[in-house]
Amino acid sequence: MSVKEWKERKERFAGVSDREVKGVYRPSDVADLDYERDLGDPGEYPYTRGIHPTMYRGRLWTMRQFAGFGTAEQTNRRFHYLLEQGQTGLSVAFDMPTLLGYDSDHPFANGEVGKLGVAVDSLRDFEILFEGIPLNKVSTSMTINPPASIMLCMYLAVADQQGVSWDQLSGTIQNDILKDYIAQKTYIYPPEPSLRLITDTIAFATKHVPKWNTISISGYHIREAGATAAQELAFTLADGMYYVEAAMRAGLDVDDFAPRLSFFFDVHNDFFEEIAKFRAARRIWARVMREKFGAKNPRSWMLRTHAQTAGVSLTAQQPLNNAVRVALQALAAVLGGVQSLHTNSYDEALALPTEEAVKIALRTQQIIAAETGVANVVDPLGGSYYVETLTNRLEEEAYAYFERIEALGGVVAAIQQGFFQREIADAAYRFQRRLAKGDYQVVGVNAYVDPDEKPVENLLKVDLEAQRRQIERTRQIRLTRDQKKAEAALEELRRASLSSENLLPYILQCVKAYCTEGEICHVWREVWGEYREEAVY
Amino acid sequence: MSVKEWKERKERFAGVSDREVKGVYRPSDVADLDYERDLGDPGEYPYTRGIHPTMYRGRLWTMRQFAGFGTAEQTNRRFHYLLEQGQTGLSVAFDMPTLLGYDSDHPFANGEVGKLGVAVDSLRDFEILFEGIPLNKVSTSMTINPPASIMLCMYLAVADQQGVSWDQLSGTIQNDILKDYIAQKTYIYPPEPSLRLITDTIAFATKHVPKWNTISISGYHIREAGATAAQELAFTLADGMYYVEAAMRAGLDVDDFAPRLSFFFDVHNDFFEEIAKFRAARRIWARVMREKFGAKNPRSWMLRTHAQTAGVSLTAQQPLNNAVRVALQALAAVLGGVQSLHTNSYDEALALPTEEAVKIALRTQQIIAAETGVANVVDPLGGSYYVETLTNRLEEEAYAYFERIEALGGVVAAIQQGFFQREIADAAYRFQRRLAKGDYQVVGVNAYVDPDEKPVENLLKVDLEAQRRQIERTRQIRLTRDQKKAEAALEELRRASLSSENLLPYILQCVKAYCTEGEICHVWREVWGEYREEAVY
Repeated sequence: MSVKEWKERKERFAGVSDREVKGVYRPSDVADLDYERDLGDPGEYPYTRGIHPTMYRGRLWTMRQFAGFGTAEQTNRRFHYLLEQGQTGLSVAFDMPTLLGYDSDHPFANGEVGKLGVAVDSLRDFEILFEGIPLNKVSTSMTINPPASIMLCMYLAVADQQGVSWDQLSGTIQNDILKDYIAQKTYIYPPEPSLRLITDTIAFATKHVPKWNTISISGYHIREAGATAAQELAFTLADGMYYVEAAMRAGLDVDDFAPRLSFFFDVHNDFFEEIAKFRAARRIWARVMREKFGAKNPRSWMLRTHAQTAGVSLTAQQPLNNAVRVALQALAAVLGGVQSLHTNSYDEALALPTEEAVKIALRTQQIIAAETGVANVVDPLGGSYYVETLTNRLEEEAYAYFERIEALGGVVAAIQQGFFQREIADAAYRFQRRLAKGDYQVVGVNAYVDPDEKPVENLLKVDLEAQRRQIERTRQIRLTRDQKKAEAALEELRRASLSSENLLPYILQCVKAYCTEGEICHVWREVWGEYREEAVY
Repeated sequence: MSVKEWKERKERFAGVSDREVKGVYRPSDVADLDYERDLGDPGEYPYTRGIHPTMYRGRLWTMRQFAGFGTAEQTNRRFHYLLEQGQTGLSVAFDMPTLLGYDSDHPFANGEVGKLGVAVDSLRDFEILFEGIPLNKVSTSMTINPPASIMLCMYLAVADQQGVSWDQLSGTIQNDILKDYIAQKTYIYPPEPSLRLITDTIAFATKHVPKWNTISISGYHIREAGATAAQELAFTLADGMYYVEAAMRAGLDVDDFAPRLSFFFDVHNDFFEEIAKFRAARRIWARVMREKFGAKNPRSWMLRTHAQTAGVSLTAQQPLNNAVRVALQALAAVLGGVQSLHTNSYDEALALPTEEAVKIALRTQQIIAAETGVANVVDPLGGSYYVETLTNRLEEEAYAYFERIEALGGVVAAIQQGFFQREIADAAYRFQRRLAKGDYQVVGVNAYVDPDEKPVENLLKVDLEAQRRQIERTRQIRLTRDQKKAEAALEELRRASLSSENLLPYILQCVKAYCTEGEICHVWREVWGEYREEAVY
């Protein structure tokens, strides 16, 4: 064995998040690990190994593909297709005007209607969206933030029409405004009223829709904006703690609402870092909930999470390579013990996913569940010198961030000072530099480039007709609804929004009177004003 | 938490190999594990964690796609394509007549020429096969058994033509006849002369082609015939021990030849079982070589292996799902610490792989190497309660088989009694029953079947012209070569085959005289006779 043979290829080995790793991890790296204290059996505090004793042996994760495009009719067809293919939960993608609280006929909406998700203006759209789907038989996730309470009310109104009682409904609204200020930028109102909408929703749903996840505290967009795994972990959990504090300040008992908080993380390329991230997230959350917030109910300690494979890791080049990336990321999510998973379609870097591509993405989850045996054993990586070290390391890095955020005066103060935005931008910049230097290789992009690549065919395009039809429907709604009733409902909402009453009953009344999302959001725009981010660089 | 929620979905959880696994593995499961004795650092005896201290940080595994179809010209073009795409080693697939020692114009060859691999009759075919490929710059694996020595001599002859000295050549011939008797059935001669060809090759190459792997002891075909992971592991290592004994009986010093023995395993669906299999294989081999055979050179203790994703796991249904299976299997191989890897193409269950499919298969390896970070840390699963338990378990199961084989009188006696064949057939039958009952699900086959599936287009078909051209070339060779020289070389080979002389120099002489593979094999058919398996059921 010559010395040359053991020389390393690079001076420094680091994955996507640029954390340097050693070549070998040994028992000495985890000498301080105390099984009962730091891991515990699955289903036992601090839940490092998973929140249930049996995990996927009891029930597989929910296979939930994010879907939505064009009109409610088109998306309803896609939902039925996915359910026929064995998907076990729905996940609604809304178009940009809907996310930002504008109706399809608003001038700002032009060209964006139905483009990146389904267009929803009024309850009529929701009735069509869930046609033939009994709401007591599926769980539905809705990725929307400032108008989240409106969408929940539309869902409740459809349940009423179907004769399904609210306590049978399960699902999630994203409803996480802090990550919008930090990364996703689909905020509308300033922080204070935005947080009030969230706490009102939490309070209302805790009481009336007991199986509903009232918020999905989201690291996904933070990560996709360029954050490292540690930043995603720390910022998301910091947001979560802020919501807990806000709800407690609003007078709620932590054990009443905390069991319905849920999370949403990215699953990026760095296989073991992602697994460790989910394990660290559970341990941190359990300790924080029990020790910092004094929660007594074990369900309040458990971090439940949805995950989505990393959209930002997909390449427009050699798109079928994305099927490989998604498979590896999905496996990491499962080994990390997530409750629900969306796998991206290989053509998503190019366009809205085709049925064919969506099917393979779903099949990826089914293959992992059925064929690989990884769902037979809970936390199969538990005890690995490397994975346990990485779990500890991510936990330490998260706590270091918590201290910095605290020192800045908390999450909202840190947002206003541009702290998160700067940290993420710095990480994104470092990653771009590594790409440029070839220190991190992306197949098809800065390595193994195919100069003769042919353009991809059969991309899904939203027909321009969809926008016209959607606008026509919303105009018809306005012409045919009981206009007096609609105006009265909006007026009552306006009055309540100026008070401290819980807004959800008023929103529900508006929704049932076929007030549009844009009209409801407009009331709040007038009452609360709009948020503008100051340039921080 | 209701009791119902922790109920398990099934009564018994088991992967592909039908080994029941527990829901949780804990420190108590590995309480007897002694790090120094049972694992050791990578590069240290017993090499459980890998044969090199730095593993993929020093050098990535060799990305070696098995390829061959039609004529030497067609396969040469595919080789150049693969090298341009970043492949790092060649691997030759031969057609069935070549594997069985028949020339393309033999009646038995009709319809099979170039069908499942490249047709090779004479040195002329090898000259074309490696045109433009400097043999001192690539390593080449050749999957062939009874005629392995002939192909090695053809390779040496091409090296001579290129002016490359033999000590610069690296690569492997499969040359493993025992697994042919056990599973693959491409034997020609009875065991005794077959083993003599192998020991002659080992002796010759050890002296003259020092970097050549003289044998690739193969579990792949055993597994593909329906064996469990433990059977694959046990039978392959038993074969390996038999070769070591045979070579030692032939008078070779174990430390002279053992460092050039190599292995070839399957990578099937059961993710953790596969990883554990590679770890167990290294530990068993190291202990056997040092303790049983008294090898002194650490290189003799190290099990080096090629791996190929499981062809038998691919489905003709929904073929793109195979890209997902291959990605997950390839990851298992890498986490298992293999030295070289072939990833199957998604369309291989339907036809010879297209260039597009071969490219994605290779990209799969490149993505794992470049993007996932798993190559940054050696044996990242080391210490996992589950993986260490599984490694121990596979080791125990292998030793139990070694004892049974010993009790039957050794490997050849066990073959003659149909022991391996019966064990494998039983395992295959059990698996088929599980499939039929739905106890093991295969996506697209007995689960998530797509009734409207469209047939796949763009399959690669071998043109029928290839057979005609190949036959024509071989006839021309016979017409234009120095016939006297060819006949004399064959006659000398016949004489040597009846003696105990090393046959390799005589084979080389035949090859250089443009004797065909069929002519050489025919000499041996006459001298040694052919092997016929007795029905064992």
